[in-house]
Amino acid sequence: MIPTLKTGRAHPHPEPISGATYSTAELMPGDRTVVMLDQRLLPRLERYEFLTGVAQVAEAIRAMVVRGAPAIGIAAAYGLTLAAGAEKGDGAAFMHAVEAADDLLRRTRPTAKNLTWALDHMKALAATLASESPVTRGVRMADAARALHASEVLACKKIGAFGAANVPDGATVLTYCNAGALATGGYGTALGVIRAACEAGKQIKVIACETRPLLQGARLTAWELARDSIPVEVITDSMVASVLAKGLVNLVVVGADRVARSGDVANKIGTYGVACLAQMHGVPFDVAAPLSTFDLECPTGDAIPIEHRGEREVTHFPTADGGMAIVPEGVSAQNPAFDVTPARLVRAIYTERGVIQPVGEAGVVAMASTGRST
Amino acid sequence: MIPTLKTGRAHPHPEPISGATYSTAELMPGDRTVVMLDQRLLPRLERYEFLTGVAQVAEAIRAMVVRGAPAIGIAAAYGLTLAAGAEKGDGAAFMHAVEAADDLLRRTRPTAKNLTWALDHMKALAATLASESPVTRGVRMADAARALHASEVLACKKIGAFGAANVPDGATVLTYCNAGALATGGYGTALGVIRAACEAGKQIKVIACETRPLLQGARLTAWELARDSIPVEVITDSMVASVLAKGLVNLVVVGADRVARSGDVANKIGTYGVACLAQMHGVPFDVAAPLSTFDLECPTGDAIPIEHRGEREVTHFPTADGGMAIVPEGVSAQNPAFDVTPARLVRAIYTERGVIQPVGEAGVVAMASTGRST
Repeated sequence: MIPTLKTGRAHPHPEPISGATYSTAELMPGDRTVVMLDQRLLPRLERYEFLTGVAQVAEAIRAMVVRGAPAIGIAAAYGLTLAAGAEKGDGAAFMHAVEAADDLLRRTRPTAKNLTWALDHMKALAATLASESPVTRGVRMADAARALHASEVLACKKIGAFGAANVPDGATVLTYCNAGALATGGYGTALGVIRAACEAGKQIKVIACETRPLLQGARLTAWELARDSIPVEVITDSMVASVLAKGLVNLVVVGADRVARSGDVANKIGTYGVACLAQMHGVPFDVAAPLSTFDLECPTGDAIPIEHRGEREVTHFPTADGGMAIVPEGVSAQNPAFDVTPARLVRAIYTERGVIQPVGEAGVVAMASTGRST
Repeated sequence: MIPTLKTGRAHPHPEPISGATYSTAELMPGDRTVVMLDQRLLPRLERYEFLTGVAQVAEAIRAMVVRGAPAIGIAAAYGLTLAAGAEKGDGAAFMHAVEAADDLLRRTRPTAKNLTWALDHMKALAATLASESPVTRGVRMADAARALHASEVLACKKIGAFGAANVPDGATVLTYCNAGALATGGYGTALGVIRAACEAGKQIKVIACETRPLLQGARLTAWELARDSIPVEVITDSMVASVLAKGLVNLVVVGADRVARSGDVANKIGTYGVACLAQMHGVPFDVAAPLSTFDLECPTGDAIPIEHRGEREVTHFPTADGGMAIVPEGVSAQNPAFDVTPARLVRAIYTERGVIQPVGEAGVVAMASTGRST
């Protein structure tokens, strides 16, 4: 269980890297506490969790207190930092603590590439620190985790700028799930494209698909955009084809949890259906993702591990009193958390280095083969 | 408000026309009370409402205590019967009461053709009864409403037989919303096809889409099928493309609220998206509907009136304590209750007279031009 040490609407961090009035995850001054906005409670409640150990961070990732591929990576980097900073023993003890924390964090969720990307990055740094003093190790790990976070937010701003160039003034943009500041540590990928278009003075309207079962679109995307006074309207996922057929959508932009070498994109369950429907209605379907989401070792989408979560997320609605059944007792449900959109349905992928278009292995490899230094 | 005169799990009607252990709507012996299973409460609660006036029946239709195009028609016929039976005045008073009740009922919901079909049928009978005694008028109207109900259930059984011939043994059938006994007064249209296939000894598995916003698939289709021990699994609407891509579906069968002359089909919002996705994945998409759902005066789907319901159905989840917001305050939502699937996406329409295939104006007119006598 994650203890609630403090509850309140005020953002608890004095200088959040998110650059917003709320944060997905931040390392508090002193480097001993990770603060997270509990995304399960939005929009009803804006409550921060204060996590002081790696086990708490791992549980928060697994339970989706924090979610969104880049944000999972950032949270994991901070989690590893807590474990590294808490270990006051010799170099061997330090490396052992880092390995154990890495193992715990790595097993939380399988699909987002950013998780392993961030842990690999932090572990590589840790390996160079074994002979340093505990204080130095702690400071260097914390600095690196914050730098990784800042680098992801900067990547979102660059992605936003590249993507915004493809968003016409006056456009209605449909997005799915939440690929915003809450999913990325700040600014957002798909919502970064929308924010950048708005900042460039374009009049943009957003249609947010509610995104069953966990309603990240209705709860989180609508919350973020309303806070930024960007016009947003919510539809059920079952209305996507209808709004496309009515010509109400100019462009679809979504985020990603993993991009394979082929350009196939894993993202929240339902994304593939939106991509199919966009193609059938002649509406461009774009993806916005930092290079930390790319996995050149996955040849195609078939190789991307897809998380299956408990069926209770589908069969019960998460009310305050423990959940209300919406499916008769004894009837089972499927709950794959992601699906794969093949590259052929994606017009462009916006990254912090530029735009991949057309989307395919050549473009992906050219853009991502050297990775990104944080 | 609809008063709850009796609550309980036992089916209150001694000889239900539904032929099941539960009923969508029945006229109780004595012809003064319509009993309805409150479909809003399923699967949590199996509660019957006892309605003694046409205003209550109209409100029950509007509030979706009863829903599903054929069931709406049956409920309206019973509602008109209550008004006709209650009027003890002369022929003019009788016709006035019938007109007023018809007007009230006709305005409840705009999309289902069966509503006007049933009311037209009952009104035509009423016009022949003006010179009869109040007792005779009441008995004749009640007999006619019950006959209309029985005729719809019989139509479902014939539809089921025609459709079942197209369902391969071992098939997994995906259905959307609820086109079962709860939607039709007994047996069902799409679920009638599935029931008939099972009764013919075929091994059938059903995937029920939950059908946001009102979850008729998760709540009602799963409930009906589980009661009949037909294997059923629930998915969110966002999972349809994924299960199709995995090859898990052999056939899609849905019901209809109105079929235009062109063969375009209005059905629950989300149906059109399922039809698009079925076509993209090479899976047949079939419709099951009685001729009472056909409207030869609507040339195409564009002419079908589409109901828009309150946005609260989307922005709030209907908990026992009045609803839990899932969308931030101040953010609006769309809520079209139906969409239109063009004829070109429909492989076949099963009716009680036979199968329309290919689906188009010629086939629709040939099958439906003489209507159906109840």
